[in-house]
Amino acid sequence: MKIYKYPAKSTWATLLTRPVFDQSELEQRVIPILEKVKNEGDAALKEFTTRFDKVELEKLQVSKAEINKAKVLVADELKTAIQTAKKNIATFHAAQKETKTIVETMPGITCWRKSVAIEKVGLYIPGGTAPLFSTVLMLGVPATIAGCKEIVLCSPPNQQGKIHPAILYTADLLGISKIYKVGGSQAIAAMAYGTETIPKVYKIFGPGNQYVTIAKQLVNKEGIAIDMPAGPSEVAVVADETGNPDFIAADLLSQAEHGIDSQVLFVTTNEAMIDKVQTAVNEQVATLPRKEIAKKALENSRSILLKTEQEVVDLINAYAPEHLILAVQNDEELGEKIINAGSVFLGNYTPESVGDYASGTNHTLPTNGFASAYSGVSLDSFIKKITFQKLTKQGLLNIGKTVEVMAAAEELEAHKRAVSVRLQAF
Amino acid sequence: MKIYKYPAKSTWATLLTRPVFDQSELEQRVIPILEKVKNEGDAALKEFTTRFDKVELEKLQVSKAEINKAKVLVADELKTAIQTAKKNIATFHAAQKETKTIVETMPGITCWRKSVAIEKVGLYIPGGTAPLFSTVLMLGVPATIAGCKEIVLCSPPNQQGKIHPAILYTADLLGISKIYKVGGSQAIAAMAYGTETIPKVYKIFGPGNQYVTIAKQLVNKEGIAIDMPAGPSEVAVVADETGNPDFIAADLLSQAEHGIDSQVLFVTTNEAMIDKVQTAVNEQVATLPRKEIAKKALENSRSILLKTEQEVVDLINAYAPEHLILAVQNDEELGEKIINAGSVFLGNYTPESVGDYASGTNHTLPTNGFASAYSGVSLDSFIKKITFQKLTKQGLLNIGKTVEVMAAAEELEAHKRAVSVRLQAF
Repeated sequence: MKIYKYPAKSTWATLLTRPVFDQSELEQRVIPILEKVKNEGDAALKEFTTRFDKVELEKLQVSKAEINKAKVLVADELKTAIQTAKKNIATFHAAQKETKTIVETMPGITCWRKSVAIEKVGLYIPGGTAPLFSTVLMLGVPATIAGCKEIVLCSPPNQQGKIHPAILYTADLLGISKIYKVGGSQAIAAMAYGTETIPKVYKIFGPGNQYVTIAKQLVNKEGIAIDMPAGPSEVAVVADETGNPDFIAADLLSQAEHGIDSQVLFVTTNEAMIDKVQTAVNEQVATLPRKEIAKKALENSRSILLKTEQEVVDLINAYAPEHLILAVQNDEELGEKIINAGSVFLGNYTPESVGDYASGTNHTLPTNGFASAYSGVSLDSFIKKITFQKLTKQGLLNIGKTVEVMAAAEELEAHKRAVSVRLQAF
Repeated sequence: MKIYKYPAKSTWATLLTRPVFDQSELEQRVIPILEKVKNEGDAALKEFTTRFDKVELEKLQVSKAEINKAKVLVADELKTAIQTAKKNIATFHAAQKETKTIVETMPGITCWRKSVAIEKVGLYIPGGTAPLFSTVLMLGVPATIAGCKEIVLCSPPNQQGKIHPAILYTADLLGISKIYKVGGSQAIAAMAYGTETIPKVYKIFGPGNQYVTIAKQLVNKEGIAIDMPAGPSEVAVVADETGNPDFIAADLLSQAEHGIDSQVLFVTTNEAMIDKVQTAVNEQVATLPRKEIAKKALENSRSILLKTEQEVVDLINAYAPEHLILAVQNDEELGEKIINAGSVFLGNYTPESVGDYASGTNHTLPTNGFASAYSGVSLDSFIKKITFQKLTKQGLLNIGKTVEVMAAAEELEAHKRAVSVRLQAF
């Protein structure tokens, strides 16, 4: 980690810069994939799966028999853990349901909002060596609580043509049955346009590599909603003298092991902590299975010493971290001052990994500074709110003149007449 | 209006198709504008304003003196109307504030969400002949209720270098003081990247022509949030025999006058209503100032006769209209069955124009079928929700094993250790 002591505020912007990737070249490779899936459907999906995933599939959909087989392969201990996580995630997300509030804005004018599930949603679960069944929970639980009628799940098959049993077990636990063996940008295209086998959806969720990210951006431009823009994962840890250097080092490393482009930031007003944390990081990283990845990520990471708590607040709000750990004595008080962050972890006993898996909060969060304008995934992400209004005769009499005057001033005569024709009929 | 009697369900998709615009050519014209503003700031803005708006500006920001002058120019009757509308919009949007709910997902694990205003937002208000001060209300009222600290408003100047007094009056009424004379894609660029004069914002709101729409899409791809994708405005009116043909015709025309690409749909199970509404439309359109526009829009509009109420519900949900008027006896009951729409107007005394201006609901709504996945603008649009979690020692003891097992199964050892190192310290 690079150490910065008392950096001038004028240097912060540079200090907090994230890596920028030029996507224009990749975009030119993704566009033809989207086009081909749009035009040729399943045949294109099978062709791309052969090319990219090195397996020839006869059927894209995972069969009930495959799911039953997978369920046997998952260890009981893991099943119990997944069920516990599911329960906590469900508890937190169910509490996000909104009750209908009818508002009388003027006598005779009532307005309200109705929350309705997005009818068809698509969940993308990346493949690779590690099976991200936790993401199945984080997207599938709120989708089922919201009441989405059609939940489509796509995940790339391995070279044996299979999806990891833990992913299938988790999907089945949530009642998700439309599971398809397709990955990459071709999976995003399948859910955006629909094919003979895979239903078209209205909104696509989930993490993925750069091809997946670009495909999501491209279909988003065509009107398919997506969860949020994506970027490399990141954590900022703030500590005072009450922070435990071993805990902090473990937290920093749990982010650094994600990928060589992960970002890790340590911020403190206590100079001694800088060395203590650095020492603990060096000790712990040596024995990690993914130490090569973590070391690379640490090379681009920063340890920052600041003068005051206010500076810490300002720097964090300027950075807008995806994850923020506040390992300080006044954690809740400091948390109140945070206005830009995805998810905040308070105190010494709240590592980021509890939120990644099982505390109940969602782990699909805005990275890359997007937390300044975006929220993480929640029940809201699977819902639209339709506004309703109903006027009585008296209500229209009360508001009629207002609407007529405003419509006339905007030179929209027909808007005005829609009121006048009714007032005249009374 | 084209009339379709009992169309087969297999033909609905074609029947409900919206016009598609090829944007790739326009995109190539907008990209250099964005680039130039990014690189040259105010100088580029002034150059584009001279080229597109035909006026040379010395200063981009509207001065306090100009605002004071504008306030005198707005008629008292209009001021009163704007104030009434503001009050209703504020009442409805203030009721959307969420109270903090602390959820204990397991003993010792508490999770909650904090709603925080997006710090910096940009409002784009189109120019042209009609001054859209109503959009200033619809975006500015929720922005101020949310507590956005920096609200930037851009609107193109006329050839005298002025913004319409009603826009300035309304902005001032809301306490918005950062008002800039710049329009088109250059205004979007200014708010996305910032210039010497115009502050960079995190999210951009507002309607506009195709250049504005494309500019919003392009900066959105770079991570600037936008309110929603845009398309031509539209209304669907559903009526039974209790509907009033004159009211319905007025409602259809109030949408048709927006632009030649506006869409208007009339749906009924009562055959006689088709002719009655058509006759009333023909009568009313003849005397409209914007009749040429309305007539063009009507040419592409449809009158659809269906057999059953269920078919009506299915067709409307498939179309996902921006505005939906239910001029039927069982309006509320039918409204409950609607799952895809922007805003719904119930009964014979609730014309769309009351929602466009003053009932309290927002008029920035998803068009083009986007209502299947998007909500209209609300207080939510100006807010992010940050999740928080805090574990006690007991909480971590309760969840620790679950996290360790899941992290190990996802082969993320450092995630596991962030828990283990704490459990070992207890």
